[in-house]
Amino acid sequence: MKILLPDTVPLDPALPEGWEAVVVDARAEIPAEHHDAAALVVWGSSRRHLASAAEHLGGLRLVQSLAAGVEGILAAGFGKDVVIAAGAGLHSATVSEHALALLLSLVRRLPESREAQQRHEWSQELGGLQPLHPEGRITTLLDARVLIWGFGQIGQTLAPTLQALGAEVRGAARSAGTRAGVEVIAEDTVLQTLPEVDSLGNNLPATEATRGVVGREVLAALPDHALLVNVGRGATVDQDALREALEAGTLGGAALDVTEPEPLPAEDPLWDAPRLLITPHAAGGRPVGADERITRNLQALEGGGEILHVAR
Amino acid sequence: MKILLPDTVPLDPALPEGWEAVVVDARAEIPAEHHDAAALVVWGSSRRHLASAAEHLGGLRLVQSLAAGVEGILAAGFGKDVVIAAGAGLHSATVSEHALALLLSLVRRLPESREAQQRHEWSQELGGLQPLHPEGRITTLLDARVLIWGFGQIGQTLAPTLQALGAEVRGAARSAGTRAGVEVIAEDTVLQTLPEVDSLGNNLPATEATRGVVGREVLAALPDHALLVNVGRGATVDQDALREALEAGTLGGAALDVTEPEPLPAEDPLWDAPRLLITPHAAGGRPVGADERITRNLQALEGGGEILHVAR
Repeated sequence: MKILLPDTVPLDPALPEGWEAVVVDARAEIPAEHHDAAALVVWGSSRRHLASAAEHLGGLRLVQSLAAGVEGILAAGFGKDVVIAAGAGLHSATVSEHALALLLSLVRRLPESREAQQRHEWSQELGGLQPLHPEGRITTLLDARVLIWGFGQIGQTLAPTLQALGAEVRGAARSAGTRAGVEVIAEDTVLQTLPEVDSLGNNLPATEATRGVVGREVLAALPDHALLVNVGRGATVDQDALREALEAGTLGGAALDVTEPEPLPAEDPLWDAPRLLITPHAAGGRPVGADERITRNLQALEGGGEILHVAR
Repeated sequence: MKILLPDTVPLDPALPEGWEAVVVDARAEIPAEHHDAAALVVWGSSRRHLASAAEHLGGLRLVQSLAAGVEGILAAGFGKDVVIAAGAGLHSATVSEHALALLLSLVRRLPESREAQQRHEWSQELGGLQPLHPEGRITTLLDARVLIWGFGQIGQTLAPTLQALGAEVRGAARSAGTRAGVEVIAEDTVLQTLPEVDSLGNNLPATEATRGVVGREVLAALPDHALLVNVGRGATVDQDALREALEAGTLGGAALDVTEPEPLPAEDPLWDAPRLLITPHAAGGRPVGADERITRNLQALEGGGEILHVAR
């Protein structure tokens, strides 16, 4: 049996007996000599690549994505006997690390320090003796009240680190409860909770229901000192409302790893919003544990076990 | 009994029976009506304030500093019956948080993102699909080899968080062993260990022995991709050597919260060194748990128990 690996990421999965791996160009059509493949790994693969796989790989049994989202694969027209597995969880470590970096950068005012540095200025206002909890500003995660909206694997990976740094962490998801030891509130109570939130982590996926959900109402409900970090999807934020809140001083700061659209056009006024840090969708993009996931799901395919994160 | 509290930080310690607290101007001489004080808390206090206390507080029994260093107090001429207690440990949480913020900012290339943002540029080089461990660059703490040189309370507070983020952490101190569950190497083996270090955390105190110790030899021993973070003391780094290593590309990046001298003069060439982030001694400056320490040491003073961190 043959598994096709993309050339977009270094992979070296242990294979069940009788399997061989072949690396193919993930941006090109599948070469004819590999139309006998039984499994296909997808990462940064072009639409053309996926369409060619759907059309020509007659013995295909598994499409293993390394991305959490599989919209492109679902749209490619694979036969209904083909199992499509999402790469859920492969990006939790890297994306939560980036979210932490962004939040700490806002809390510790590193962009302001960088700008003072560019002016050769040792800012007395940014350093020196200071209160631990100055009125109307968050300068440490100690005692900071963090709400992570969209409390999936990324949020659950991030929460213990924030707790270890002294933050009070809650999640928000469809239903209330306790997940991974963290209190989770129901989404329909988020608005009334926001006045008691120092930092809102937005890890929401892009759906019709979440479009622009971090908008005027949500931003107005947050305290003026609150910090927003978005490592979810750009479409969930009303960027005009965000820019206006930053300009009006009714939001303490924000960091976005995702925007709508991407790339953000050079003429977009969001670039120049005050106290805003933008990174160019840099949080993930590098699956962790991909080899193990491929091995795991090939073994399940062979042995009849449960394939992880079947999307269809 | 009377304890004098400085007006430089909000304090509200629980006091043993019979004690009263008075807040005094920490930059001025002690007013005559408070020359009967038995205890003095020191934070951002002027030399004049300390000298006046040493001269006039005839019944003084305890000077409680909220800073880790007590050089100024030792030099003020207090009588030899006066116990001087250092504020060791009160800054571990805040300084280690800042060190983490600086390291993550370097790892996640946030200064470069900020500069791209200033140019309205969505940098394809900083985001998108990427290898987890690109050759010759550190882009995540996952599997990163971190050495913390000067492995006191700050390093011991930082280490578990770095470990939780996937880093391999070691300390370096005068003697080898295991401290707080972390492997500690002896200082005299640091030089031979540096080629296997991705990030060097410099938490060294300023002494005659540590002056300029992070100099040409140390910087040359580190890999070209290594990152240096200094939240210790500026005098421990040879800043000319650091600038030259950054300019020559033989060091991946650096972040300094401390410099020599402070403030760093506007004309110092260090400001413009590439891949260098400077914060203006902003890591600590806000004791955590000061009230509890004051209460604890007053009780010990009264009850004859052990006063924490007696410097003299």
